Amino acid sequence: MDWDQLWIEVNLATMDPAQNGPYGAIEDGAVAIKDGKIAWLGPRSALPEFDPFSLPVYRGHGGWLTPGLIDCHTHLLFGGNRANEFEQRLNGVSYAEIAQAGGGILSTVRATRAADEETLFQGGRKRLNSLLREGVTTVEVKSGYGLDLDTERRLLEVARHLGAMHPIEVVTTFLGAHALPPEFKDNADGYIEHVINQQLPAIAADGLADAVDVFCEHIAFDLDQTEAVFQAAKAHDLPVKLHAEQLSNMGGSALAARYQALSVDHIECLDQAGVEAIAQSGTVAVLLPGAFFTLKETRLPPIDLLRQHKVPMALASDFNPGSSPLCSTLLMLNMGCTLFGLTPAEALAGVTRHAAQALGLQERVGQIKVGMEADLVLWEIEQPAELAWQYGCNPCREVMKHGQLVTLR
Amino acid sequence: MDWDQLWIEVNLATMDPAQNGPYGAIEDGAVAIKDGKIAWLGPRSALPEFDPFSLPVYRGHGGWLTPGLIDCHTHLLFGGNRANEFEQRLNGVSYAEIAQAGGGILSTVRATRAADEETLFQGGRKRLNSLLREGVTTVEVKSGYGLDLDTERRLLEVARHLGAMHPIEVVTTFLGAHALPPEFKDNADGYIEHVINQQLPAIAADGLADAVDVFCEHIAFDLDQTEAVFQAAKAHDLPVKLHAEQLSNMGGSALAARYQALSVDHIECLDQAGVEAIAQSGTVAVLLPGAFFTLKETRLPPIDLLRQHKVPMALASDFNPGSSPLCSTLLMLNMGCTLFGLTPAEALAGVTRHAAQALGLQERVGQIKVGMEADLVLWEIEQPAELAWQYGCNPCREVMKHGQLVTLR
Ligand SMILES: [Zn+2]
Ligand SMILES: [Zn+2]
Repeated sequence: MDWDQLWIEVNLATMDPAQNGPYGAIEDGAVAIKDGKIAWLGPRSALPEFDPFSLPVYRGHGGWLTPGLIDCHTHLLFGGNRANEFEQRLNGVSYAEIAQAGGGILSTVRATRAADEETLFQGGRKRLNSLLREGVTTVEVKSGYGLDLDTERRLLEVARHLGAMHPIEVVTTFLGAHALPPEFKDNADGYIEHVINQQLPAIAADGLADAVDVFCEHIAFDLDQTEAVFQAAKAHDLPVKLHAEQLSNMGGSALAARYQALSVDHIECLDQAGVEAIAQSGTVAVLLPGAFFTLKETRLPPIDLLRQHKVPMALASDFNPGSSPLCSTLLMLNMGCTLFGLTPAEALAGVTRHAAQALGLQERVGQIKVGMEADLVLWEIEQPAELAWQYGCNPCREVMKHGQLVTLR
Repeated sequence: MDWDQLWIEVNLATMDPAQNGPYGAIEDGAVAIKDGKIAWLGPRSALPEFDPFSLPVYRGHGGWLTPGLIDCHTHLLFGGNRANEFEQRLNGVSYAEIAQAGGGILSTVRATRAADEETLFQGGRKRLNSLLREGVTTVEVKSGYGLDLDTERRLLEVARHLGAMHPIEVVTTFLGAHALPPEFKDNADGYIEHVINQQLPAIAADGLADAVDVFCEHIAFDLDQTEAVFQAAKAHDLPVKLHAEQLSNMGGSALAARYQALSVDHIECLDQAGVEAIAQSGTVAVLLPGAFFTLKETRLPPIDLLRQHKVPMALASDFNPGSSPLCSTLLMLNMGCTLFGLTPAEALAGVTRHAAQALGLQERVGQIKVGMEADLVLWEIEQPAELAWQYGCNPCREVMKHGQLVTLR
């Protein structure tokens, strides 16, 4: 066979719905790789004859191989840290006092504007290394802590630079409409015009964004402002995503569905009409248990409705310095099950197949399937559910990206 | 100076109440070590003159040095895994059905009885390695999945063996009274007699236990049974601890206080009288947010009352395959703050000074203090609160146990 590499002595959780059960499992399977892509897979007993000395053969020692994990919603790049504020709050200082003292998201905006490329790059590199160690091979990175053209551009350039230098594949999202910068205090419409007329054209022209996102919420931007950004994104041929229905039901998801959004994210407050709308548009529901946990939310996303309407559910870290300082995709598997009641198989689909779809990459990554990238993780586990059940004794043994072993020790 | 080693370019979170602020902080400090113990510490400016070529000098690059972390409550050793059951429950199978099919704690008991020493040892070693990587230098390990003399003894022997072989110091607790084994179905008094007359004497004679624990709860053992075990422990000169007031207020903590228990653990349902009792006896309150999280409990431990009565609060993982499959002491810092409202300084004291006290080791570990063990962790952080704020991008850079660098890469 004309293969470059072969995996044997592994069980496969292909996450391919055409395969067996919720994990698309093939026990005692084999995977062959050619030119960084999956060239063959199946039970080992069906492996065509090959010369074992003709190619490198990796042995999985009876572990499980899954697709590389995908974290489809992060705010990975920012300056400064918010430990101070976290500590103040726990010492009884109110949110209002912290905001008055310049805390909250705007403190991160200040620190990010002040951070040079190298600082942002090194912070991002450390976090990507940490994610790679737990089997993550694709990460979405949003801008949104610049809120001016220079800094938004710098964030996305650093994200592109990381993607070029790091084994993890980085997908970028422009989130200029994340919060209102101090320069546009009490003038959200003015800022949205700035996003549309100044930031987005420059960023789109330089090819820095793979998608455009908005934070649609009563504490951020309203439906009209969101739609204005969506229209501009479409004019630049960029797909959209939306932070929607986190704290209230504003109808953002239905709007996003009308714009064929790749995903709507958070959606704790999404109602039936919203679920029906995104089911129709093929939009992915991205669940973010880290923010739910950190903000001590009590309202659960409508998991049963999403299941009934067969909406693909992704699961992501939402890693950010404020509402989800949890830089671990693997922890989200446990939290997705424990907090949201996902099954371990739904959780794993949420960081593989469905996360790929939330990034528009479903033809290329997220499953172990012939023709897809050889993004593979070998886990020292006896069954896939262990990935969601036990956390903290990282069972990730090998990580392969585009057919290259990239495991960090 | 007659020192063996020196740390400089470090900030110290000594956790010594005699030092400055809630962390006992000394910025730009230095620590000298002699014979594995701390021989000197203070601001670098106060460092006595020494010949820099006379001893190894470790540079902290401006990071923070804390005492080695202590996880004072774990069920680290067990056979099998409960991923199956975790998955079944999330697929809608009821607790009752799982119990009827032999699931729950008794499935772990069966698997543990069937596991040989080597299997238990290798499982424990992996988990200790994972804890060591996040700065843990002392771990308590409970028995309690054997429920017969042979297996309880095997668990404690493996724990002792791990303590001898692994850089982490292992403290053992005999928890024969953890659950009712099938051989004593409907005969809890009979099993308690067996614990007292068969298990404990043999285990005490072999010096396998540093303390004795009981699970006092309506689903486990009552007050009389608990007291009987406490009396037996006292007769063998062993200190006691108690799983108490987790699901209901049975008065276990007040009983434990009468026996000068080292700690009462869980205590979500502890009332004011109970708090006053343990305040009087100097018993540590061990908070276990991992179990609170996993069981989706809603009743919070009485943190304010514990503060008012100056009860030392420790924080531990309760790592176990059922109610807290979270093998990460560092995650507990975040969970202790997020779920229980501890301040980051309280959380850090909870895994250092107060955890030491919960194990009766407060004279030897848990603080950076002259005469104490040189159990030190270097963290790449700008302020101690970061340890509780951000999780998942492990900032642990070096770990020292008894004055020896033992960092795993
Ligand atoms: Zn977000
Ligand atoms: Zn326990």
